[in-house]
Amino acid sequence: MSEEALASWRDGAAKQTIIEFVRQVSTPGPHYVSPAERVAAFDHDGTLWCEKPMYVQMAYILDNMKERIEGIPALAENPTIRGILLGNLAAVRRVSIAGFLELVSSFGPGPSPDEYEASVAQWLAYAVHPRFGVAYTQLVYQPMIELLAYLRSSGFKVAICTGGGIEFVRVIAEELYGVARECVIGTAMSYAVKERSGHLVLDRAPSLYGPANEGNGKPINIQAHIGRQPILALGNSTGDIEMLRMAGERPLSLCLMINHDDAAREYAYEGRAATVKTTESAVTMARRRGWTVVSMKNDWQNVFAFNSS
Amino acid sequence: MSEEALASWRDGAAKQTIIEFVRQVSTPGPHYVSPAERVAAFDHDGTLWCEKPMYVQMAYILDNMKERIEGIPALAENPTIRGILLGNLAAVRRVSIAGFLELVSSFGPGPSPDEYEASVAQWLAYAVHPRFGVAYTQLVYQPMIELLAYLRSSGFKVAICTGGGIEFVRVIAEELYGVARECVIGTAMSYAVKERSGHLVLDRAPSLYGPANEGNGKPINIQAHIGRQPILALGNSTGDIEMLRMAGERPLSLCLMINHDDAAREYAYEGRAATVKTTESAVTMARRRGWTVVSMKNDWQNVFAFNSS
Repeated sequence: MSEEALASWRDGAAKQTIIEFVRQVSTPGPHYVSPAERVAAFDHDGTLWCEKPMYVQMAYILDNMKERIEGIPALAENPTIRGILLGNLAAVRRVSIAGFLELVSSFGPGPSPDEYEASVAQWLAYAVHPRFGVAYTQLVYQPMIELLAYLRSSGFKVAICTGGGIEFVRVIAEELYGVARECVIGTAMSYAVKERSGHLVLDRAPSLYGPANEGNGKPINIQAHIGRQPILALGNSTGDIEMLRMAGERPLSLCLMINHDDAAREYAYEGRAATVKTTESAVTMARRRGWTVVSMKNDWQNVFAFNSS
Repeated sequence: MSEEALASWRDGAAKQTIIEFVRQVSTPGPHYVSPAERVAAFDHDGTLWCEKPMYVQMAYILDNMKERIEGIPALAENPTIRGILLGNLAAVRRVSIAGFLELVSSFGPGPSPDEYEASVAQWLAYAVHPRFGVAYTQLVYQPMIELLAYLRSSGFKVAICTGGGIEFVRVIAEELYGVARECVIGTAMSYAVKERSGHLVLDRAPSLYGPANEGNGKPINIQAHIGRQPILALGNSTGDIEMLRMAGERPLSLCLMINHDDAAREYAYEGRAATVKTTESAVTMARRRGWTVVSMKNDWQNVFAFNSS
């Protein structure tokens, strides 16, 4: 596959760095990496699709919470959930998806894995993004779709490593990104095996399975799921730093940080830190470490397929 | 692929049940299952390769323990480890691999993932089975290798779900079974991310990541790793019962239990329970549930490739 595969990437340092890296690791020479070790890990929210004005999964949770609350009054009385339901967007932003999953699960067993996936698929089929007026599944970044195909055609194995819920992303990973569900890594709830009327069932338990998939949790969960740290890692927030740093420990690696600097076509985060834990933005951290920063505004010819030029 | 693919299986009920099941789920009709859901899960020790006189991984651990003990005297003083080192095979059998991993890890950080894999690969290259006098990697069951290929050619995704260590099995899964490492599910140690001399490293932590992969742990870890319960599940011990039962909850499924009844070519377990938790053997449980029991003696034309007829 030629570099024309990256048609939505404008010529520039980011595109050239990607092409040169892929060439070095996939062709015989001093930096050659065997296909088995040629692993790329992509963060999801804000890296593969739009995460504003709130995480898509959070929009799903909010839309589904009212149903849940009718059955469990204690849910409505929880101050965090109450604030969120009253439309307090700041309250949503303060809660991580992991924290939210634990909070909601603490009120009783949730749906079975099959029921949960069906519920997400159903919601995604009708929910519409408040600004762009299209389905959330239309808000995948076209340059990233091309990059995924380019990497695959160059012998890479691609994993998604999301701070969001693993089961939420599994619903869309194969169709949107061509990533099989066993290559999706994310924040996961525990299950318990229960016997019910002679049948064995999985009940969601009110705790996480493994660490929340952000920060240090990303390399730990990558090791648990696929057993290999990536040589190419892509993120857009401070929660991705450790995943990128761990990739950086490989002999030759490429660490890419997406800079959301395009208010016209997507959003401009304006250097704000993505979490409350740090005052330094992910883009500043990336520059300090010499990683490749991808400017949405300058490096991408197109952002979404539905408004491609 | 025709049924000739199962050349090491003798004609009989087990072989015919497998072929008929695969035909039903992979051809249009009332029992058709989409390829995405056509998942098969294989236990490892005693199902894909020989597990006697002790788990291969346990032999590796014992061979490597002496090195470890020189550095950590407290290890040698632990009564369990002391008993094992004195050649007390009963002591080995009483300890599960999960328990052993936790015990050994409690004495300090182990090797990095890369170091561990290299150590296992090196050991497998020279270690020899005490009875058969061949490398352990020669002791894969030929009928199972054929079954794996047959299932794959029929559109199945194959996962290994082992009570043993996930990192141990990953070393051999691709080469011996054609199973990618992200489709290996097993008992896993936790890691911690540490900063050392400016580098980020993964340190083994003295605790398990997720539940030990036996009993209820199998369906739970299958959900966490690949997000789909199998429609075809194969095991040989009481630790596999829950995995097989969960497969049995699918609309159409096949549950296979290997009966080690061939003292001449492999081992005859003689109906002994595989664990101390139950007095009923896995084969008895399987018969009671109407599952298909595979007799090594009667259903397999060959056991190992190296002594095929």
